[in-house]
Amino acid sequence: MGEENRLQRWRERISTELDTVMGFWTRHSEDKEYGGFFTCLGRDGAVYDQLKYIWLQGRQVWMYCRLYRKVPRFHREELLNSAIAGGEFLIAHARPSSDSLKCAFVVTRDGKAVKIQRTIFSECFYVMAMDELWRTTHKEKYKREARKMMDQIVHWVRVDSSGLGRPELPGAEPVNSMAVPMMLLNLVDQLCEDDEEAAMKYSELGSWSVEKILQHLQRDGQAIFENVSEDGQELPGCMGRHQNPGHAIEAGWFLLRQAFTNADHNLGKIAVEKFIRLPFESGWDQEYGGLFSFQDVDGHCPTQLEWSMKLWWPHTEALIAFLLGYMETKDPRLLGDFQKVYDYVFSKFSDPEHGEWFGYLTQEGKVALTIKGGPFKGCFHVPRCLYMCEEILTKLIEDKGAKTQ
Amino acid sequence: MGEENRLQRWRERISTELDTVMGFWTRHSEDKEYGGFFTCLGRDGAVYDQLKYIWLQGRQVWMYCRLYRKVPRFHREELLNSAIAGGEFLIAHARPSSDSLKCAFVVTRDGKAVKIQRTIFSECFYVMAMDELWRTTHKEKYKREARKMMDQIVHWVRVDSSGLGRPELPGAEPVNSMAVPMMLLNLVDQLCEDDEEAAMKYSELGSWSVEKILQHLQRDGQAIFENVSEDGQELPGCMGRHQNPGHAIEAGWFLLRQAFTNADHNLGKIAVEKFIRLPFESGWDQEYGGLFSFQDVDGHCPTQLEWSMKLWWPHTEALIAFLLGYMETKDPRLLGDFQKVYDYVFSKFSDPEHGEWFGYLTQEGKVALTIKGGPFKGCFHVPRCLYMCEEILTKLIEDKGAKTQ
Repeated sequence: MGEENRLQRWRERISTELDTVMGFWTRHSEDKEYGGFFTCLGRDGAVYDQLKYIWLQGRQVWMYCRLYRKVPRFHREELLNSAIAGGEFLIAHARPSSDSLKCAFVVTRDGKAVKIQRTIFSECFYVMAMDELWRTTHKEKYKREARKMMDQIVHWVRVDSSGLGRPELPGAEPVNSMAVPMMLLNLVDQLCEDDEEAAMKYSELGSWSVEKILQHLQRDGQAIFENVSEDGQELPGCMGRHQNPGHAIEAGWFLLRQAFTNADHNLGKIAVEKFIRLPFESGWDQEYGGLFSFQDVDGHCPTQLEWSMKLWWPHTEALIAFLLGYMETKDPRLLGDFQKVYDYVFSKFSDPEHGEWFGYLTQEGKVALTIKGGPFKGCFHVPRCLYMCEEILTKLIEDKGAKTQ
Repeated sequence: MGEENRLQRWRERISTELDTVMGFWTRHSEDKEYGGFFTCLGRDGAVYDQLKYIWLQGRQVWMYCRLYRKVPRFHREELLNSAIAGGEFLIAHARPSSDSLKCAFVVTRDGKAVKIQRTIFSECFYVMAMDELWRTTHKEKYKREARKMMDQIVHWVRVDSSGLGRPELPGAEPVNSMAVPMMLLNLVDQLCEDDEEAAMKYSELGSWSVEKILQHLQRDGQAIFENVSEDGQELPGCMGRHQNPGHAIEAGWFLLRQAFTNADHNLGKIAVEKFIRLPFESGWDQEYGGLFSFQDVDGHCPTQLEWSMKLWWPHTEALIAFLLGYMETKDPRLLGDFQKVYDYVFSKFSDPEHGEWFGYLTQEGKVALTIKGGPFKGCFHVPRCLYMCEEILTKLIEDKGAKTQ
């Protein structure tokens, strides 16, 4: 009963926090004139820049739809309408050129392209938004948008990347960057929900993504690297030694989702032990608490200025990962780890005065940036974490209830 | 006499520091096999990555030649030989394509291009290296390299930027980014030393660069902005409000050099009051000391994660700027400001144990990155500052001596 109480206390606080966080975004971020969302929001929600970052537009549409569709108290007309307006903004403005599916990275308030990245990520969040909009509205056009873009992304990644516009350079050998198979695995998870045709279509892509992610387990299974060669070997220099504990942990829970889908307990075990527990142990700051942003596996100082800062999103990934990991293994140590991160985030990141979380703390845990949203922080990691944790805790509590009856 | 003593004490310590700093680079950074320099050096000088960043290759060649040419105790064969090997490395490997002068941003140890930036800065440091090599060796081929590249840069900036490879996007209006005219003014200063033909050729470019820099003085002369419109108007959003105190102060001393050349005391006054004193007062951290890296003119929190960190290079620019400013105005407040920065750098950045300076401190002044060199820090800002301060202090001491005789 002690543990069940603990799960219930967690769920209660997390549910309340999800309401507060979503209240922040619905109050401050919607652009009622042009559609889409402002994400450059100060501590109190005031808009300090009107640029629209496409990653964050796609993520916010996804978040609104997902909550509308899955959580009864968010099944609210105004949430759906904002999501649709955001989706229509993306369809109208995300792609600067009519002859290409390449999306911008950032556009003006009224949708004019400011910058294009030569990567696949704007497009991936476009797929997430469109697929979730389809599931929420049942309008086929959104499904068509999602599928068309997904085919394009897979083509860029697995057949021919020239459409991304990156020059081929003799010193830049192809790299298996973990972000790419992670993102694809996450999209496979998204597209295949209750959809047998999609599950058939994307099954091989899912397996390929898992295989590519597992190549990042290096040094005899003792470290996760962000970058390896295309055939899974360690790369020279900083790039090869680069570690991102939060990202490894996120990969861990993506793998766990795949393990659940396929009842693959071997994969589940690797996900928990190697992608979740290992980076958490090496990435947790023993002195001040919190997860380091970046590390060098051999203990060199990373060259990224923020390496020792504590960012919000790795902590949200850890909360999800520990609960999913517990669901898979029932290992109580994972609940202890969850508690550790939970205590840290509620005392350091959460802002009880204005809602939402601060995103950027110093190593010591002081707020370094007071912004609540910016070019890379929007309505996504915090509410996704809270929504998923609420859902998993509910399931865990139900399971315990069933057992004790 | 009190003041002269102070100038002498400063010069003595600065000379010793210059020797220590240069010892660090000559001991640790030279690649004797391929030519050029390793710049990714840990606290003790150990190479942690072999990539070669072209900005830093060009800057180190420039620094070695300049010291060899101007400072008798550095007139050493091995310094010249390393500079020539670095220059030859640049000529052989900086340009990945034989049909373009576009330079890489970073190459492998043996010179294969890894990444190309769509800006002019690699090319600018190439010019600095080649011009200084010519002045040091008197070999015409280096002068030809410098001039050819300079013409190309001016063409990209003032005639047609399409060769840089940036896409034209409807939401990205042309911006007058202060870095561009600053860099050009610095190159004009470099190319015109004791060269009347060059002075004629580049005189108009110098005036144009000054005019473009002065457009960054905004808000009724109360703030320096990093970015303004092409016609000198304030831009919307974060980009428009963005301030970089160290960069403004560096622009200040570039303007002062131009003011000396043309005996333009009005420009000298603007340089000191608006580009040096103003950003120093608003950019100095009253609580912990040191210059903030970035600020928002309206007091919003910047979105750059390192905004409150203290970086080495703004402080080196300030030291140069205060001494040059004092040379121009004889305003004793500038020596007080110099003392403040001098005390800060010697207590916080300088590493008495292994030599050279740390580059990156937290807001509170704690070393955040222990590296001595990396992708953006090489053998340049610290020795350039120490060399220039030594030279200016010598001149000031001589002037005082002459007066009291």
